[in-house]
Amino acid sequence: MIRTLIATLLLATAVPLVAQPLPTPTPAPSGKPSYLPTVPKAVADIRDAALTDNYAWDLVEGLTTEVGQRMGGTEAEARARAWAVAKLTAMGFANVHVERFALPVWTRGAEAAEILAPFPQKLVVAAFGNSASTPAQGIVGEVVGFDSLSDLIAAPDAAVRGKIVFVSHAMPQTQDGSGYGFFGGPRRQGPSIASRKGAIGIVVRSIGTDHHRNPHAGGQIFETGVAPIPAGALSLPDAEQLQRILKRGQPVTMHLTLVSSIRPGDSGNVIAEVPGRDPTAPILMVGGHLDSWDLGTGAIDDGAGVAITAAAAKRIMDAGRPLRTIRVVWFGAEEMGIYGGMFYQDLHGREGHYSIAESDFGADRIWKVDSKFGKPREAEGKALQAALAPLGIVPGPLDEADGSDIGPMIEGGMSAVGLSQDGTKYFDLHHTPDDTLDKIDPEALRQNVAAWTAMLAVLSGGIEPQPKARKRR
Amino acid sequence: MIRTLIATLLLATAVPLVAQPLPTPTPAPSGKPSYLPTVPKAVADIRDAALTDNYAWDLVEGLTTEVGQRMGGTEAEARARAWAVAKLTAMGFANVHVERFALPVWTRGAEAAEILAPFPQKLVVAAFGNSASTPAQGIVGEVVGFDSLSDLIAAPDAAVRGKIVFVSHAMPQTQDGSGYGFFGGPRRQGPSIASRKGAIGIVVRSIGTDHHRNPHAGGQIFETGVAPIPAGALSLPDAEQLQRILKRGQPVTMHLTLVSSIRPGDSGNVIAEVPGRDPTAPILMVGGHLDSWDLGTGAIDDGAGVAITAAAAKRIMDAGRPLRTIRVVWFGAEEMGIYGGMFYQDLHGREGHYSIAESDFGADRIWKVDSKFGKPREAEGKALQAALAPLGIVPGPLDEADGSDIGPMIEGGMSAVGLSQDGTKYFDLHHTPDDTLDKIDPEALRQNVAAWTAMLAVLSGGIEPQPKARKRR
Repeated sequence: MIRTLIATLLLATAVPLVAQPLPTPTPAPSGKPSYLPTVPKAVADIRDAALTDNYAWDLVEGLTTEVGQRMGGTEAEARARAWAVAKLTAMGFANVHVERFALPVWTRGAEAAEILAPFPQKLVVAAFGNSASTPAQGIVGEVVGFDSLSDLIAAPDAAVRGKIVFVSHAMPQTQDGSGYGFFGGPRRQGPSIASRKGAIGIVVRSIGTDHHRNPHAGGQIFETGVAPIPAGALSLPDAEQLQRILKRGQPVTMHLTLVSSIRPGDSGNVIAEVPGRDPTAPILMVGGHLDSWDLGTGAIDDGAGVAITAAAAKRIMDAGRPLRTIRVVWFGAEEMGIYGGMFYQDLHGREGHYSIAESDFGADRIWKVDSKFGKPREAEGKALQAALAPLGIVPGPLDEADGSDIGPMIEGGMSAVGLSQDGTKYFDLHHTPDDTLDKIDPEALRQNVAAWTAMLAVLSGGIEPQPKARKRR
Repeated sequence: MIRTLIATLLLATAVPLVAQPLPTPTPAPSGKPSYLPTVPKAVADIRDAALTDNYAWDLVEGLTTEVGQRMGGTEAEARARAWAVAKLTAMGFANVHVERFALPVWTRGAEAAEILAPFPQKLVVAAFGNSASTPAQGIVGEVVGFDSLSDLIAAPDAAVRGKIVFVSHAMPQTQDGSGYGFFGGPRRQGPSIASRKGAIGIVVRSIGTDHHRNPHAGGQIFETGVAPIPAGALSLPDAEQLQRILKRGQPVTMHLTLVSSIRPGDSGNVIAEVPGRDPTAPILMVGGHLDSWDLGTGAIDDGAGVAITAAAAKRIMDAGRPLRTIRVVWFGAEEMGIYGGMFYQDLHGREGHYSIAESDFGADRIWKVDSKFGKPREAEGKALQAALAPLGIVPGPLDEADGSDIGPMIEGGMSAVGLSQDGTKYFDLHHTPDDTLDKIDPEALRQNVAAWTAMLAVLSGGIEPQPKARKRR
């Protein structure tokens, strides 16, 4: 059936370089097929050419160097949007524009943590998003330590009241990042739980897997009815230091300063498109988030993601015109609460989306592809698996996909692809000052671009070459 | 000859467990001996028992946890001395005391570096020791970048005058740390050179080999007649960021705040001894430096060194009484200019020292042994090589050894041993906030203790067992 289609298309005057594959997998001897359909040469060619990509590096190098940190809702994020519009326009994208929205903007101020007794010394700390502010001179309290969130929950209020809570449980490295859910609890739920029990503040072991004096920031939202308290993360070496000090058994007094402020502000999603030959066809949406945490320059979170997805779309644009419009979205203010993703859903959620996909898990190699197209389009999922396997990408489930900004839309039923990056080292850097350009391996970045380009080629409905400019005599 | 000696000694009532080996190497077939004398069983036994050592971990864990940073001349260093006296006394050392001396104490204040134009963003910076202080509000100047110290030296004064100098050359990793000399130039000489040319400040790429947002502090002393200027280090990712920004070709303006102060103060060397059977015999001196830089907790620099050397001396003490007194010295204020080493030399330089040795290059495995005993005692150097080879330690030169605090004494002609730690990763952590306990591998630490214990066993002149306490009926 693929051959028939290609033969038909070859007779047409405008020859699509990349035909949408409609595979017919041969049944495997043992029943369940353990192999995949053949990959059209045009898809393989555009995929392999992307292994020499420089667009993505140029984008992430430019964004992290010329803007740097770009926390959601700040003046720096506004500069990032202006940078993005200029860059995407210069790259030849169509319909480049910003869709703005309002949000409360939390801003970090002076921060310090110091053990006053029994062993005076400074610890490295960073506040979580939406932390309450301490007074400028900080607060002083006795530290009560817990080995896990469960231990904090189980503790009588009297053991916590008037104290500074410390939770120390440690997240392991995992390839798929699955530890982040459970082990992120002390950051996400810890502040609310501690506040309910009467704590005057909370510090937790950073939700990370490194051993550097760089705390991991991150968002948290106080539950309704809970009084916000100062809440932050100690770097992992500092958390282990505090554990050792507590183990000595003497009362530990901490001076904690976590100054911050909240004000009304605004952010926006940057949109850019590769127009499809059929403007009525459901679109392909790809992207990442433009904002970053304030401590690093947001290279792996998520400069890489916006760079990879735009680079892939640009490579399709260079190859010709796809049937479907490809929409690149660089979401705003993801870190502060998925504001950009929710705003996009409000504005565009009822438009036809053939597939959506987001890159927001670093810049290491993609190791697995998931998709969720629904049963009738499962063959497309297999065609995608086939196109990606030569990049060392494992065929994953055909009935799931995820993403941060696009999470609500996937839950709403949109078809989606998940190109999973190796997350083993991701939480060494995630939300820390160390999230900088030097952590990106250019070759791994190119493998990402090749995978995203191949995905777009498979799903774009066929790419038609641009008419060549006539030579003047 | 060894056998004769041991036989003789076995006839004595007090049997030395460890006889000083007087080796007779058999000539190698090809002329140069490529093998070493046999190792007395008593030396091998005491060495191998040290591979299960816990003294060193207990010391470095205690010092870094209960004191933390202990910059030379500060109140924290005074607490470290009190901690040391209590600990060494509790361990059973004799003659535990402090020998105090005066020094100027430089103290770090508020620090910040911010690019104002063309791409506003903050960079991570730390002042060098003896840096001049900026005003509290900092200074603002155009940045002039140089790829090496040579380029700065070659630049016309007019290119530097009134500007903030940036030197970016990068140090490679080496096992023996030999890059630190040449590549440390921008820190040691850079500030003086920049000041002579009229610069208002200088920032250099940290003298380090990591890629974390942690700057490497370090000492520097302005040349006589040179006006001190503010001088500091950018973390490596920030230095590379500044390089990328400068490469864009637009004028770069920096706001630099490096507040610091200097006041008179005092420090001291902590001394502890294992008394020898012969109080008139020249002594063995071993040690490291007790002070640390202020950014980390001084685990590898030099908590490990003081722990390793004291643990080895304690293991000898546990085994019995050596012929020679072993003196453990924990030097004060090394980082600020080898004050403790020079004071020790002034006070004790004319006493008889059979050998001196210092551990001050981290906590990784020892890979090479050097010694400098002079030609007549070369056989002792070979006996030492033989005793250490089973720990995976390469026999090094017999005519050289070095050390920081003990450097001036070695130059003055004292016999010395150098047990070289693997320095490949040392400059990832050196003088940074990341110099913390979690960076020490307990097994590598034990290999160090085993090597130092073996060295003391070889050179101690024989260890006599303690008389056993009589059992009461």
